[in-house]
Amino acid sequence: MDKLIDDIVRQVIGERAPKKTLSNMNLETAKYIIDKVEKKAEEMGVRAVVAIAEAGGNIIAVESMDDAYFASYDIATNKAYTCVALKMSTKKLSTLSLPGQSLYGIQFTNQGRIVIFGGGDPLLSQGRVIGAVGVSGGSEEQDTALSAYAKEVFEEIIE
Amino acid sequence: MDKLIDDIVRQVIGERAPKKTLSNMNLETAKYIIDKVEKKAEEMGVRAVVAIAEAGGNIIAVESMDDAYFASYDIATNKAYTCVALKMSTKKLSTLSLPGQSLYGIQFTNQGRIVIFGGGDPLLSQGRVIGAVGVSGGSEEQDTALSAYAKEVFEEIIE
Amino acid sequence: MDKLIDDIVRQVIGERAPKKTLSNMNLETAKYIIDKVEKKAEEMGVRAVVAIAEAGGNIIAVESMDDAYFASYDIATNKAYTCVALKMSTKKLSTLSLPGQSLYGIQFTNQGRIVIFGGGDPLLSQGRVIGAVGVSGGSEEQDTALSAYAKEVFEEIIE
Amino acid sequence: MDKLIDDIVRQVIGERAPKKTLSNMNLETAKYIIDKVEKKAEEMGVRAVVAIAEAGGNIIAVESMDDAYFASYDIATNKAYTCVALKMSTKKLSTLSLPGQSLYGIQFTNQGRIVIFGGGDPLLSQGRVIGAVGVSGGSEEQDTALSAYAKEVFEEIIE
Repeated sequence: MDKLIDDIVRQVIGERAPKKTLSNMNLETAKYIIDKVEKKAEEMGVRAVVAIAEAGGNIIAVESMDDAYFASYDIATNKAYTCVALKMSTKKLSTLSLPGQSLYGIQFTNQGRIVIFGGGDPLLSQGRVIGAVGVSGGSEEQDTALSAYAKEVFEEIIE
Repeated sequence: MDKLIDDIVRQVIGERAPKKTLSNMNLETAKYIIDKVEKKAEEMGVRAVVAIAEAGGNIIAVESMDDAYFASYDIATNKAYTCVALKMSTKKLSTLSLPGQSLYGIQFTNQGRIVIFGGGDPLLSQGRVIGAVGVSGGSEEQDTALSAYAKEVFEEIIE
Repeated sequence: MDKLIDDIVRQVIGERAPKKTLSNMNLETAKYIIDKVEKKAEEMGVRAVVAIAEAGGNIIAVESMDDAYFASYDIATNKAYTCVALKMSTKKLSTLSLPGQSLYGIQFTNQGRIVIFGGGDPLLSQGRVIGAVGVSGGSEEQDTALSAYAKEVFEEIIE
Repeated sequence: MDKLIDDIVRQVIGERAPKKTLSNMNLETAKYIIDKVEKKAEEMGVRAVVAIAEAGGNIIAVESMDDAYFASYDIATNKAYTCVALKMSTKKLSTLSLPGQSLYGIQFTNQGRIVIFGGGDPLLSQGRVIGAVGVSGGSEEQDTALSAYAKEVFEEIIE
């Protein structure tokens, strides 16, 4: 909440907040990202589930927008898990896991927790993966755009 | 957010908001409850995970307070699920599922999603279960108190 | 390896190594602990599986002594997970999860990953859980003694 | 450890150790292989998880190099399992399981434990599969090279 107020104050006075570093995802940051993504999803007409994982792959916060798909809950949380567990976006993984490509079959390992289509992005501080975001609810293009946006929002405040 | 502001305004002018009815849990209400429970948990020195389910047992929102137990994520979400699925609090179920009691064994069904200790409460509008809350992170007494508090908070605004 | 040599040198010259802090479990420390526990298990006539988890509950190293029970692999890894996920020893949990006690039923949540008998201990640095050890293969008393020994070994080098 | 010392002594005096036979994988051999693979992985700039299974498909030892992918734990252990369970390398299986090929669909069986991309090799003594190695963490080419190297290391000491 303080961060949000800071943010508003700085926007009003036209000043950029100094970036912080994070050793692990925390709830305040998770909620800040989710809030922004939901606003963007609303603009796009998408009813999304947004999930944030911490550095060990454990889920810290999830929100399901009204009328989002129930299936999106597992997909969003698993996208966030996947990005921590493989240190890459699920978009990148979607290419590597095609039949004939080097990681084809990875979707069947890890108890069905690996998601191989766009909408998940790892979140880094000082070069280390300290969490991830997973978005599900729209088309793959929309989910991919929303998780990329989440990453952008994160990188505006954390370095 | 609007609801929060309404709430503040009414508290200032000493007026009670008229209660509303809900046909199903929505994200705004879920976040409102979670926010209140987290503030209470903080006062009690508990680091809780708070989860809210809708009428079909699907999870709508989860938040893990910083340094909460990772295990509490599954427990809180499963408590919320349990309360929708059985239309009773997990506290009540804790007695019914003891060895020799009528529901002994229920904890081995439903793919391990049934939780049989306190910290979960169904949430009703006009006599129908339209969602549930699950809290995990403190002692059973604390979790039970926190989910009872969540129910109270809910019943202040919904009838 | 360097740590082991340091250790030997210091034992010879009668000097204690200065303790270090750890932000998260690493492989060198995990192997150091496992090696010590296996030696102790051998003295006790136990064929143990020893597992080490990092701060997020992910397993970093496991070793199964020759002729250990195959079942001990899941038990040891799940004990380590349990101790990270609940920030307590599985011995402590064994009391809290008895029928009629406050956490009775916790063993049925979390996809069967919660173990409620002795042999697992959280490992802390500067007051934070940065990993855990799980031991399985002997009687509960033996496993409990071995994981307590692992904790002791860890605390000799990490603070 | 004795084996390692023997090995060093023999390398110094330029003598080859006589090969032994193994009726089943043991911990000493498993650790010997893992150690060698980790050194090679380090040279290649790969942070690998290396797992060794015994003749029954049970995992005997796993090590996760610092900063390896968390997902690699399941993948490496499942690669080792797959190679024992199907008596072939996961590289060979990657071709046989392509859409239209004879084993297409095998990745959906066995509770998600079958891995169909390179990085796993069965280990044989006297023509019998007595264990297997699974490596995960690099590209498929790197994992395949590392498990092939593990097989080579094994075959230098076991026949």
